[in-house]
Amino acid sequence: MEYQQKNLTRSEYEEFLKVTAGEKPADLVLENVSYLDVFTNQFKKGNVAIAYGTFAGIGDYKGRVTIDMTGKTIVPGFIDGHIHIESTTVVPEIFAREALKHGTTAILTDPHEIANVMGVDGIKYMLEATENLPMDIYFMLPSCVPSCEFDESKSAIFARDMEQFYDNKRVFGIAELMDVKGVVSRRPDVMDKTYSAILNNKLIDGHAPTVTGQELMAYVAAGVLSDHECADMNEALEKMGLGLWIMIREGTAAQNLEALMDLCKEPYAVRCMFCTDDRHINDIMDEGHIDNIIRKAISLGAAPEVAFKMASCSAAVYFGLRDRGAISPGFRADFVVLDDVNTVAINSVYKSGQHVTDEYLDKECKSKIRKELEDAASDTFHLQPVTSDKLQNTKALPVMGLVDGQLYTTNEGEAEAIDVANDILKVAVIERHHNTGHIGLGFIKGYGLKSGAIATSVAHDSHNIIAVGTCEEDIAAAVNELCKIGGGMLVYDQGQVKASYALPVAGLMSKLPGNEAKQKIDQVRAAAESIGVNKGIDPFMTLSFTALPVIPELRITTHGMVDVSNWKLIR
Amino acid sequence: MEYQQKNLTRSEYEEFLKVTAGEKPADLVLENVSYLDVFTNQFKKGNVAIAYGTFAGIGDYKGRVTIDMTGKTIVPGFIDGHIHIESTTVVPEIFAREALKHGTTAILTDPHEIANVMGVDGIKYMLEATENLPMDIYFMLPSCVPSCEFDESKSAIFARDMEQFYDNKRVFGIAELMDVKGVVSRRPDVMDKTYSAILNNKLIDGHAPTVTGQELMAYVAAGVLSDHECADMNEALEKMGLGLWIMIREGTAAQNLEALMDLCKEPYAVRCMFCTDDRHINDIMDEGHIDNIIRKAISLGAAPEVAFKMASCSAAVYFGLRDRGAISPGFRADFVVLDDVNTVAINSVYKSGQHVTDEYLDKECKSKIRKELEDAASDTFHLQPVTSDKLQNTKALPVMGLVDGQLYTTNEGEAEAIDVANDILKVAVIERHHNTGHIGLGFIKGYGLKSGAIATSVAHDSHNIIAVGTCEEDIAAAVNELCKIGGGMLVYDQGQVKASYALPVAGLMSKLPGNEAKQKIDQVRAAAESIGVNKGIDPFMTLSFTALPVIPELRITTHGMVDVSNWKLIR
Repeated sequence: MEYQQKNLTRSEYEEFLKVTAGEKPADLVLENVSYLDVFTNQFKKGNVAIAYGTFAGIGDYKGRVTIDMTGKTIVPGFIDGHIHIESTTVVPEIFAREALKHGTTAILTDPHEIANVMGVDGIKYMLEATENLPMDIYFMLPSCVPSCEFDESKSAIFARDMEQFYDNKRVFGIAELMDVKGVVSRRPDVMDKTYSAILNNKLIDGHAPTVTGQELMAYVAAGVLSDHECADMNEALEKMGLGLWIMIREGTAAQNLEALMDLCKEPYAVRCMFCTDDRHINDIMDEGHIDNIIRKAISLGAAPEVAFKMASCSAAVYFGLRDRGAISPGFRADFVVLDDVNTVAINSVYKSGQHVTDEYLDKECKSKIRKELEDAASDTFHLQPVTSDKLQNTKALPVMGLVDGQLYTTNEGEAEAIDVANDILKVAVIERHHNTGHIGLGFIKGYGLKSGAIATSVAHDSHNIIAVGTCEEDIAAAVNELCKIGGGMLVYDQGQVKASYALPVAGLMSKLPGNEAKQKIDQVRAAAESIGVNKGIDPFMTLSFTALPVIPELRITTHGMVDVSNWKLIR
Repeated sequence: MEYQQKNLTRSEYEEFLKVTAGEKPADLVLENVSYLDVFTNQFKKGNVAIAYGTFAGIGDYKGRVTIDMTGKTIVPGFIDGHIHIESTTVVPEIFAREALKHGTTAILTDPHEIANVMGVDGIKYMLEATENLPMDIYFMLPSCVPSCEFDESKSAIFARDMEQFYDNKRVFGIAELMDVKGVVSRRPDVMDKTYSAILNNKLIDGHAPTVTGQELMAYVAAGVLSDHECADMNEALEKMGLGLWIMIREGTAAQNLEALMDLCKEPYAVRCMFCTDDRHINDIMDEGHIDNIIRKAISLGAAPEVAFKMASCSAAVYFGLRDRGAISPGFRADFVVLDDVNTVAINSVYKSGQHVTDEYLDKECKSKIRKELEDAASDTFHLQPVTSDKLQNTKALPVMGLVDGQLYTTNEGEAEAIDVANDILKVAVIERHHNTGHIGLGFIKGYGLKSGAIATSVAHDSHNIIAVGTCEEDIAAAVNELCKIGGGMLVYDQGQVKASYALPVAGLMSKLPGNEAKQKIDQVRAAAESIGVNKGIDPFMTLSFTALPVIPELRITTHGMVDVSNWKLIR
């Protein structure tokens, strides 16, 4: 629990109280505004006074600045309960800039991707990159690096590595505890992490898709407090009934809101919040961030007062952000001005009482990162150029099948060689952290490529290089070209790079301004589709998840194909 | 936030998880029991397993001990959000014993009464007296000692006195901030306390009867988080809309549930809890403690699942008792077994998985208090015997009118002398802390005494001696007899003590077992009524509040009558 007033000196505190008592003008008064009371679930009307970046009162207040807000509605700033900033493909200062415009004033981020690439330095990089941004960025520490024994990350992160961050006030706990089996079987390294979090009074976020019954009991008993992987109401209500807070996810690839719409009412709404998990910057810019989820919820029938409450107050309560998520004296003046409530038409956004304008963003959205961390982040490719002979298979290999709109894959048997006519393409994962020369090979069906190759260094969770191609030569060329630009997303065809989007920060993030980053994503996507990639899947996001060996059926790693259901490497 | 698992060593934690995973028998399994899921507001059925004093799981569990609970229902242990243990008239070990039987497993106490009598030592006394009891007793520190400038307490308590307790894990914050005007006018000593609580991340409980509008804004903005003084729904919803948590009070004298019944439903119920504030031990034994409030709420139409949730989960959330208030893995196994849900028919109570039997209470309900504190608590009467001439008035004095069933009083003009026939009695408050000889005099109407006198050392908030009588001689005799027994409640008539209840601990609390204490209260009440006290008021509780100069219209202090509405002493 933390009071907003704690940011004030004693004399500022008293000056602030003078404002609330009407003895001194407020910094800003929003006159005749409709505002959301998240405690009684009602829109009310009044003059809202702000001083010292904090709501001072609602009533008959005078302000040094007043704005007539007749016809407008304000709601508390939105909170994303679980997001990997890296998955937006842009660095935090760019992400914060774009998401702030969409009303997001606080997030809980899990620097899981960069931690797989840079180890503990990745966590430090993100902490420094977010320290002085105008969005409040809090951390849940990656709890499963590497994701499992088949994944080849830069280094493993242990409990002792995490503990060094527990004194940081922006570190709230440990993120999505994906290793459900490790918890339930009480694997020592997992117990080290959960028990350490418990001793330090840190939150433990869960990640337990389809886990139920006694396994779920054991998982919850270990100390897990939330879950963002519910796919239907039965699953959600079983978990909520055990005390788990539910995060409803709407990302670029995984979208659960529609199936969980019944959570968007009381008594459930007070224990549910929204999150995006993995969402590309172009989707944020085109459709929105948390505002997009609220919009969708309302369009699917949620009461607006409940949807906005879930997006703010509920998340604030779970994370212990006592001074966030409400429009009331003593709460931080983070809010969104709406032209229309039902369509979530955003007029403007205020952070700590400051109007979020382009000038404000130009001034405030600047990260300061130590040079040694910047240098480390731009030196994450440690591999020799790949030659096509390394990509040849000497025996039949498994074929992984993609399914439109889904992250899970199917087992499509085996193949001897690429067969473009039948959409049998080669997929390779090339180790890039330690120059081990490890290359895992297999085949993929359902991707749709007709010529050339596609490569990306965003490949969950270890973020080695994953590439798909219609011939080994093009795959090798795509990978080598990708390394030249420091990682990213690349489309190679007809002997040349058709389009590329460099992600030089750890091979995961770009420093381009939002509109340029968006343009780049649009370009590489269009280029991928132009050489045949199936429109039912995202050419890069979906591909990146085919390397994550914790989702059934087949996954591709640096060691080859993994049969996830039977938990074994297929040699 | 604190995990129950934090009480376990690492190896116990793993053994506990073995139980949840079904690999090891639980300590106790309640088979076929109906249990309340406070998160989805539903009664469910299952086998509830307990290990290490903690709920381990619900499902197919084996236990070293199993109890068939077919037909029974369990609900989480009850929490009293605000209680002055001193007002029960018994010491903590006696109170805990009786309240535990009624299902109360945790309370937030404010040692306000004893702090008025003993200063900081009173707080220490209560902390020591509650340290090893089987009920979880947490503290909110008295924030207004003395209650105001007209009240003559042992000593004043300042912010620096309170800060010494902030490291104590059972001290959660500061209690009922009664001095609303002091807050709103930013009086330095009040600001010292609120700002210090803010800096230390401590909760600030409120106490703001009828406060509304801008005054309420200023009060809330100072950092106040709750209120237990709401008298109607308008008041409650205005306060809740500003983020205050609402405690619905049902004490011996003040009872607000009926007027606030509409709070006993969602979305309000998650931010409302129950409290007793001031409740005599006999009422707890006869009618119940928090169970009595739940029973009344259900009888007035509350859904049982909501009423039980307010009595447990809602309070736990407000106070940050993360591991309390639910029946779910990882929560402390504090629960109440009911034979019938609707009548709150308690079959048995369990604390940390232990059956609360008489033997358990005999063994566990034992306070250990340092001798120096015990000695100080039994040496709180510092005054000379009173002679009747000191009780004579030389001029007309105000007449305070009592109103049946209410704490407020009326201004009934002036009187020259006692007039028993017209129910004009003399009331006196005699200073007892510093031998100052201060005696405040006045007249009282509506008390009904026909002969003799009544005296008590429970006299809010300073707990000087208050006495009412039909002649000055009997008042003097009653006061002197009261001092001989070390304080308490006493009825004097016809030249002798008709009945007395000694409260030798600070003149506020008895060490008698519950049934004997109850008998004593019944006796002094009966004796008071036998010499005429109006049955519409409580002869002692109501009288004790006539000395509290913060409730309109008139109050009596050691300095004489106070006109509360005009905030002045009537000389």
